[in-house]
Amino acid sequence: MIKLPAEMKAKDKGRPVVAVAMGDPAGISPELTAALLSDREIVSRAQLVVFGDRRVLAAGAAVAKVAPDVAFAASPDGPVPGDKPLFVDLGNLDPASIRTAEASLAGGTFSSDNFRRALCLAAASRADAVFFTPFNKAAMRMAYPGYDDEIRFVRDAIGSDAQASEFNILGGLWNARVTSHISLKEVAAAITPQRILEALLLADACLREAGFDPPRIAVAALNPHAGDGGNFGREEIEVIGPAVAAAEAQGLGVQGPYPSDTVFLRAKNGDFDAVLTMYHDQGQIAMKLMGFDRGVTLIGGFPFPICTPAHGTAYEIAGKGIANTGASRAALLLAIEMAERRRATPRKAA
Amino acid sequence: MIKLPAEMKAKDKGRPVVAVAMGDPAGISPELTAALLSDREIVSRAQLVVFGDRRVLAAGAAVAKVAPDVAFAASPDGPVPGDKPLFVDLGNLDPASIRTAEASLAGGTFSSDNFRRALCLAAASRADAVFFTPFNKAAMRMAYPGYDDEIRFVRDAIGSDAQASEFNILGGLWNARVTSHISLKEVAAAITPQRILEALLLADACLREAGFDPPRIAVAALNPHAGDGGNFGREEIEVIGPAVAAAEAQGLGVQGPYPSDTVFLRAKNGDFDAVLTMYHDQGQIAMKLMGFDRGVTLIGGFPFPICTPAHGTAYEIAGKGIANTGASRAALLLAIEMAERRRATPRKAA
Repeated sequence: MIKLPAEMKAKDKGRPVVAVAMGDPAGISPELTAALLSDREIVSRAQLVVFGDRRVLAAGAAVAKVAPDVAFAASPDGPVPGDKPLFVDLGNLDPASIRTAEASLAGGTFSSDNFRRALCLAAASRADAVFFTPFNKAAMRMAYPGYDDEIRFVRDAIGSDAQASEFNILGGLWNARVTSHISLKEVAAAITPQRILEALLLADACLREAGFDPPRIAVAALNPHAGDGGNFGREEIEVIGPAVAAAEAQGLGVQGPYPSDTVFLRAKNGDFDAVLTMYHDQGQIAMKLMGFDRGVTLIGGFPFPICTPAHGTAYEIAGKGIANTGASRAALLLAIEMAERRRATPRKAA
Repeated sequence: MIKLPAEMKAKDKGRPVVAVAMGDPAGISPELTAALLSDREIVSRAQLVVFGDRRVLAAGAAVAKVAPDVAFAASPDGPVPGDKPLFVDLGNLDPASIRTAEASLAGGTFSSDNFRRALCLAAASRADAVFFTPFNKAAMRMAYPGYDDEIRFVRDAIGSDAQASEFNILGGLWNARVTSHISLKEVAAAITPQRILEALLLADACLREAGFDPPRIAVAALNPHAGDGGNFGREEIEVIGPAVAAAEAQGLGVQGPYPSDTVFLRAKNGDFDAVLTMYHDQGQIAMKLMGFDRGVTLIGGFPFPICTPAHGTAYEIAGKGIANTGASRAALLLAIEMAERRRATPRKAA
């Protein structure tokens, strides 16, 4: 074991550090966490610092039939445990108090505490990336009534007003969006050339950090048939087109706007690495049909990447030992890869 | 050959009569028409009355390497030719004047003439259904500047103000929509309980005519996460929910509103026969990803059904003899099936 001054850990060691938050205890998060901590490739490629309760981990390990070899500590400030994951036992939940498949205040408090601690570690530059197993939205709201989605939570937790965005990733295909959790009638007014350009710059930066060089990004139109030359709306001409031109002028590999009912067919065929959609369902309809439940969600735009599997807490199969770890594994590997690349090429300050 | 008074033909003979319009001559429409007229099942199940030019048909037959056995006539008013398709030779296009893969005024005039004649035959109750091979939109606009889509054309052609709607059909899954070719920002104001209820009633009637008894229809929400209980829009609570309740009260098998990013996954799994979407791309993104290009478009709501393949003129493969007739065949068979069922159970007047 090598002891390093706390503030140097993330930056100076060779392996990237990924802060991991245990998610909702009533679903499959405990078993997923236990399985990931027993995954040799993952454990060897990154120093994991996990926040949760060792009793919840033990319960998850029993379900997943694994025996994760971790070093327990009461805080992340102690010695780094060689090549073992560091499990920070916050002693914040007795699993006996949780009913499987039931959203609860205790479960939401546990998840949000773990997440906050993981975020703060990364915000203090002591982790390069954050990963979490699925949260339950209802439980999160019980614990944190202002909870809309993870982005809002992160902003509050680390005091950031960064323009962050959610990316949905399935295999080699990324989907980013300009607007997300707003009503459909607000969408047209919310997409401005500036916001679209910012979304493209952010997507380009995140894709590069994930190894796309250069990324090929398609921009979806807002209106049917991309507005049909102005017959069904003029946003393509007045808003989206100028934003694409501005992004091209900055050297980005951007194309569009393309009709949203065929752009994903082209992306699926390999024409693009990413599609920027104008609103939530425009991308989600396509991504979910293509199997995004097996994919990864990345929150980009904060000073560090945050990754999680796309699927939810899967209450219906919790505790049965049948949860598929594929999406969680892909999400944690993406966090590790982005962390590795960030170490190799430090980003400009936002 | 049996000669019947013109006004009795469609109603009194056993086999349904389907009026067929040849579509754009610069694409695959001529070869598709020739192939369908050589299809034994189709020719045996319906009396086809085809509008076009025999020279264009001959050109299509040469490409498709078929020899359709049709009876030529100068008008549909003559004797019915036993069990042969009746080809009404309008003498309206010399194929030598058309360049393959080029939209032209002549091509648009040909297609729109044929379509108008087919529609008028059905409007006069002398055909039970209408089918057409693909049109080219640019060519249609050259010939008919007011051309927005087929529905507008049909309204003008037969002087109907019926609330017609387009259905997209892929295998056993139908998609209908409340709004279509309008800008996205106009959608929220355009979906009213009354319009949604009318769309559900029309979908239910059309599905029944196609043999679904009773049809199971899911209604898509407008907003992300179906509005998340009012957090991201209230149309689900104030507009769509009440329309679904009103449809249920009339005995329809309707469910929803469901989030639009998962409703098609459920439909694909067989939970529903149809999905009613609120706007164009909401359904088209899903249907095209699922392979709707191999599907069928039905225009319902006029006094007779109108069917066509979902794909377009396929200029890039025109004249090569490689066009797939599957979608056209499915569309014409749907027209025939609906025509048969209409004969068996006459509809109430609209």
